[in-house]
Amino acid sequence: MKNTFGQSLTVTLFGESHGPYIGAVLDGLAPGIDIDEEFIKHQLDLRRPAGKISTKRVEQDEYIIASGAFNGKTTGTPLSILIPNSVQKSADYENSPRIARPGHADFTANEKYHGFEDFRGGGHFSGRITAAVVAAGAVVIPALKKKGILIGTHIKSCGGISDRGFEDYAKDIESLSKTNFPILDEKKAADIREMMEQTASEGDSVGGVLETVITGMPTGVGEPWFDTVEGILAHAMYSIPAIKGVQFGDAFDMVDKKGSEYNDAFRMEGDRVVTLTNHNGGINGGITNGMPILFRCAVKPTPSIYKKQESIELNSRKDADLEIIGRHDPAIIHRARIVVDSMTALAVYDMLAVRYGTDWFLKG
Amino acid sequence: MKNTFGQSLTVTLFGESHGPYIGAVLDGLAPGIDIDEEFIKHQLDLRRPAGKISTKRVEQDEYIIASGAFNGKTTGTPLSILIPNSVQKSADYENSPRIARPGHADFTANEKYHGFEDFRGGGHFSGRITAAVVAAGAVVIPALKKKGILIGTHIKSCGGISDRGFEDYAKDIESLSKTNFPILDEKKAADIREMMEQTASEGDSVGGVLETVITGMPTGVGEPWFDTVEGILAHAMYSIPAIKGVQFGDAFDMVDKKGSEYNDAFRMEGDRVVTLTNHNGGINGGITNGMPILFRCAVKPTPSIYKKQESIELNSRKDADLEIIGRHDPAIIHRARIVVDSMTALAVYDMLAVRYGTDWFLKG
Amino acid sequence: MKNTFGQSLTVTLFGESHGPYIGAVLDGLAPGIDIDEEFIKHQLDLRRPAGKISTKRVEQDEYIIASGAFNGKTTGTPLSILIPNSVQKSADYENSPRIARPGHADFTANEKYHGFEDFRGGGHFSGRITAAVVAAGAVVIPALKKKGILIGTHIKSCGGISDRGFEDYAKDIESLSKTNFPILDEKKAADIREMMEQTASEGDSVGGVLETVITGMPTGVGEPWFDTVEGILAHAMYSIPAIKGVQFGDAFDMVDKKGSEYNDAFRMEGDRVVTLTNHNGGINGGITNGMPILFRCAVKPTPSIYKKQESIELNSRKDADLEIIGRHDPAIIHRARIVVDSMTALAVYDMLAVRYGTDWFLKG
Amino acid sequence: MKNTFGQSLTVTLFGESHGPYIGAVLDGLAPGIDIDEEFIKHQLDLRRPAGKISTKRVEQDEYIIASGAFNGKTTGTPLSILIPNSVQKSADYENSPRIARPGHADFTANEKYHGFEDFRGGGHFSGRITAAVVAAGAVVIPALKKKGILIGTHIKSCGGISDRGFEDYAKDIESLSKTNFPILDEKKAADIREMMEQTASEGDSVGGVLETVITGMPTGVGEPWFDTVEGILAHAMYSIPAIKGVQFGDAFDMVDKKGSEYNDAFRMEGDRVVTLTNHNGGINGGITNGMPILFRCAVKPTPSIYKKQESIELNSRKDADLEIIGRHDPAIIHRARIVVDSMTALAVYDMLAVRYGTDWFLKG
Repeated sequence: MKNTFGQSLTVTLFGESHGPYIGAVLDGLAPGIDIDEEFIKHQLDLRRPAGKISTKRVEQDEYIIASGAFNGKTTGTPLSILIPNSVQKSADYENSPRIARPGHADFTANEKYHGFEDFRGGGHFSGRITAAVVAAGAVVIPALKKKGILIGTHIKSCGGISDRGFEDYAKDIESLSKTNFPILDEKKAADIREMMEQTASEGDSVGGVLETVITGMPTGVGEPWFDTVEGILAHAMYSIPAIKGVQFGDAFDMVDKKGSEYNDAFRMEGDRVVTLTNHNGGINGGITNGMPILFRCAVKPTPSIYKKQESIELNSRKDADLEIIGRHDPAIIHRARIVVDSMTALAVYDMLAVRYGTDWFLKG
Repeated sequence: MKNTFGQSLTVTLFGESHGPYIGAVLDGLAPGIDIDEEFIKHQLDLRRPAGKISTKRVEQDEYIIASGAFNGKTTGTPLSILIPNSVQKSADYENSPRIARPGHADFTANEKYHGFEDFRGGGHFSGRITAAVVAAGAVVIPALKKKGILIGTHIKSCGGISDRGFEDYAKDIESLSKTNFPILDEKKAADIREMMEQTASEGDSVGGVLETVITGMPTGVGEPWFDTVEGILAHAMYSIPAIKGVQFGDAFDMVDKKGSEYNDAFRMEGDRVVTLTNHNGGINGGITNGMPILFRCAVKPTPSIYKKQESIELNSRKDADLEIIGRHDPAIIHRARIVVDSMTALAVYDMLAVRYGTDWFLKG
Repeated sequence: MKNTFGQSLTVTLFGESHGPYIGAVLDGLAPGIDIDEEFIKHQLDLRRPAGKISTKRVEQDEYIIASGAFNGKTTGTPLSILIPNSVQKSADYENSPRIARPGHADFTANEKYHGFEDFRGGGHFSGRITAAVVAAGAVVIPALKKKGILIGTHIKSCGGISDRGFEDYAKDIESLSKTNFPILDEKKAADIREMMEQTASEGDSVGGVLETVITGMPTGVGEPWFDTVEGILAHAMYSIPAIKGVQFGDAFDMVDKKGSEYNDAFRMEGDRVVTLTNHNGGINGGITNGMPILFRCAVKPTPSIYKKQESIELNSRKDADLEIIGRHDPAIIHRARIVVDSMTALAVYDMLAVRYGTDWFLKG
Repeated sequence: MKNTFGQSLTVTLFGESHGPYIGAVLDGLAPGIDIDEEFIKHQLDLRRPAGKISTKRVEQDEYIIASGAFNGKTTGTPLSILIPNSVQKSADYENSPRIARPGHADFTANEKYHGFEDFRGGGHFSGRITAAVVAAGAVVIPALKKKGILIGTHIKSCGGISDRGFEDYAKDIESLSKTNFPILDEKKAADIREMMEQTASEGDSVGGVLETVITGMPTGVGEPWFDTVEGILAHAMYSIPAIKGVQFGDAFDMVDKKGSEYNDAFRMEGDRVVTLTNHNGGINGGITNGMPILFRCAVKPTPSIYKKQESIELNSRKDADLEIIGRHDPAIIHRARIVVDSMTALAVYDMLAVRYGTDWFLKG
């Protein structure tokens, strides 16, 4: 399956950083879903570089819905989104020496594709491809919202500075949806921004932890083996460049606790079953229990740095040192946030469509 | 796909704790792989309860290879393994009150299956099903070994006590393969065992972190989007009951480091490319770089405890308190280890068969 | 995927003619479906040899539901069915000369599995495996019936003798469900039986055409590309040994007609849309139009014959002649009928579960 | 999966007749395959209308390779092909009465997509989408050829006129590859053309039978259950509009023969195993035997005719008569031919990549 993900709703990604288009095909959407073009643009804007702390390559992120939409609504046939790469510079890179960038996929792509990969700008591995994920996600996020399902992600910690946790989910998700620097505590946001700028000035980079919540999920979604909610979401998240860890509920954070502290006691709240704590992140036995789904992603420090690094040259396979020139993001965690939200939305839509059928979102 | 996993090699699991058989179907195996019956038994033994610190339910773990084997070798057709449930007690549970066990899947199964689930002993969610995973893994582990690929897992930490890290992979994997209490440092093993017994005496339970290494992986395996090595392995791991977090390389552990500290510099070692550190866990851009693959799984504390817990009764949907009687594992992390190894082996075999074809392991 | 078929409902087959068990795993069944054990036995009986015109190997076709059932209903977890091979004779076949039977899979299996295949009795290619298909089908046929969906198949023609076409679908399906010699016209049934016996006495075999109808299908099921109703059903049918052609509606039979003769005119019948003819077999553009789905399968003459045949010996790869001793079916078309019904039922259930969700059959 | 097909090589189709683009994404191609742009154009030309006997809508069939290619070769990442719809006329169709065209998908699409379908020009059901299939096929056909695998299709019969059978496969395939009216016997070609023109003048249409051969296939490809070569190819073929029947070897044509006539005797030819006849079409037990694969597709008469037809109006659901104005193809069988070739090539590539691995075509 490779570049396609999902069962009832599938998303297929294509494109390279310097090719004519990147894009996504969404197949299995219910017909009749409103396409909110303003929202798609808004989401793409949230992914775009944010001032000083981001790369100077600024794409317009124009997009074309090439199929699957009619009179402003989904048709139910494959919806394809094309995003032209307007800023690409074509040059003959072919015989240049190519020093593998540590932490990047230059070397592994060279091994996998035997030197035929389009390496320009990271090619198919470029973070640029995530624009297609965001556009695709922006088609389904409003459909989920109509069903009462909200998704939000903030930077839980970055460079040693921690944000506050979620308090009022709906309100926090709302406020996160409006900013391209997704930190709940304003003071911490300023601290993190300053730290990022400082890191940039040193030619270095930082990573951090993203925390995501999904509210409004019905109970009984997910499977006991393999297609657990955790398995599906983690599988999707690991596609996002730089994500190296995913955990649900408290996991690594409470690994030294006792069962009596970790178990989430059940109680009735009216005629609804709730848990008094949520250390399991809304999932028991791979299946949703109706509580908010909570997970965290570890984002490694952006591998593009300006300090000199030891490496190898790919064609000659000889040692070589690398000094990157130009300007890259000292952090991508704030931009990765909306990619996490979008990928989550696609995976959640799929799990619901598997359970409730392909037309469920039409009836919303 | 639900209870089936994989592309070229698929594993399908079935069974309930108190049904006549649990089992696995392995489809896509190369023909001609030697089936080592002693090894299968050995692996099943490593999963079985280990003395005082484990449950007293002791199954024989007899197994039948019902298809796909001929003259001691795989045929290439679906290999099915049946494991009879010899110790089951059949009784009419139907009208008993059922108090959902916190941290278990009782409630979510009831929501998903609308009350038709076979809840006896946890049914399809029982850790018992992992015996089928272990037997299936034991078919492919020797085939991987012939290709120079070794897998080993130890308890990295448990109840606040940490094991030493891997030192000599081959030697450590060898020693882990012989014990049902997989800790590298003997002194720490004694401490952890003692702590587990103490926890058991308090009617409580512990979790911990498992650390796994895969050595000998070829470069260029895995996909850039979705079917990343991380995505495939994490997807598989999250099927294992109690695993709530998976990370590759250092991830959450080095989340506050800088890019200059996290990037793994490349260097030639003879005609082979190596990295000087391995914070990325042998994977760049979702694809293997030839270094050992390293990942960690957070195992939550076993939800079965003897302390009184708040909960609900499933049929009446009323609040009810739970006091579990009988004897369960105060820790399953040492038993989960071999399940992690087995699931890893199945996923690794599959990724290699996708890349090199269905007959690759025949040529080994 | 190989031995697994389906998306929302998957069926996985395993087993060899002379192994301990053959079986099927059905995954994705709704919970709460009644399991009618008498009906399963009845269906298995319809597959069994029918007197003089069939093989003398008579299995008991006992079966075990090893998982996925509880209190006489499906649980929603994988339902596995095991059928023991009671009559197998184990002998050391390993070094015997093996002359490939023309028309059978002996040679192709040898090429695919490099000589490691369990060739005894046809191994995994044996018609015996279809018993597992029939048992699996017998779990879902009653669930389809509750939704008003009926399936029936008769021998349309055999050895040059043609049955009458369907007249009253419900009545014809009912009468076919009770006989192991599924021909609608009694006189033709007698003629065909006599012809088969004559053919048997000559050491030869016959094939024929099976015609299947599915009534009660909702409109709007199926996909425009790839997962057309025709594509899904044909894919499933071609698994059945000896089926070499599948057509929907009139296809090959009306290939010389004009569009004005082939098009099925629409008309309202009350508030329901119907077609005045049904040359398209209930499917337009890959999607059901609510009319009965009609298709025909070409069943080649059974390859097992007693006449001397030219062939090769598989180990030495030398020319060799083959003379089969023992007794085989001079025709399997009457037995293949129930396999076609069963496979159809599995594929239809799957398409409906994709569209309406995993619980749709629970609500029936 | 819906609009995606394949396992190791997947093809995803999207687009509507009157949308901005139609397209295909090919994922899983080996890196390093030469992309022959002239050949792609040539193949697209073979699909285009052929003079008097075809529609007057003439698209330019310009295409853009939007990803997955670099320096004239495949990169191994998803190769996407976009074909702009240059001739579309945008108008507000929304409130017009819509009379369902008999034999077309207008009614079934309306049922499936609940009225949200883009119905203009047949939308996603339009034969126009097959241009993307042809372009995709044109990427893999040269790769197959390098491996010695050739594919060719001719009109076996049309409107009661039959072409001669294949004689010299290589030569016949070569000559078919150069004409947009694929009939081997020149005299019969003239007769068929004349008959088509006569049919057009009557406002009617014809169908026919396409016969395809694949030469050079290795032995041992395909699976015994479900993913038989027949099942995979038929599944793919049924996506092609108007195909209603598929048969392998002689099937329906020899259904009244005896086993002694149908079985294909094996013999050694040097060190290669051959069959003396090929009634099974190169496939035994779902697996290739090394002989040419032969299959036939029944193409129903084109549903677009100019005679008045009974039908219904889709919005009001009332009876209505249809009289089509404009000019359509009286036959599409000659144009469908290259779609069959292309779809066959994609399916064959996939089966080989499953068996031999993703890089097999690189080594060619």
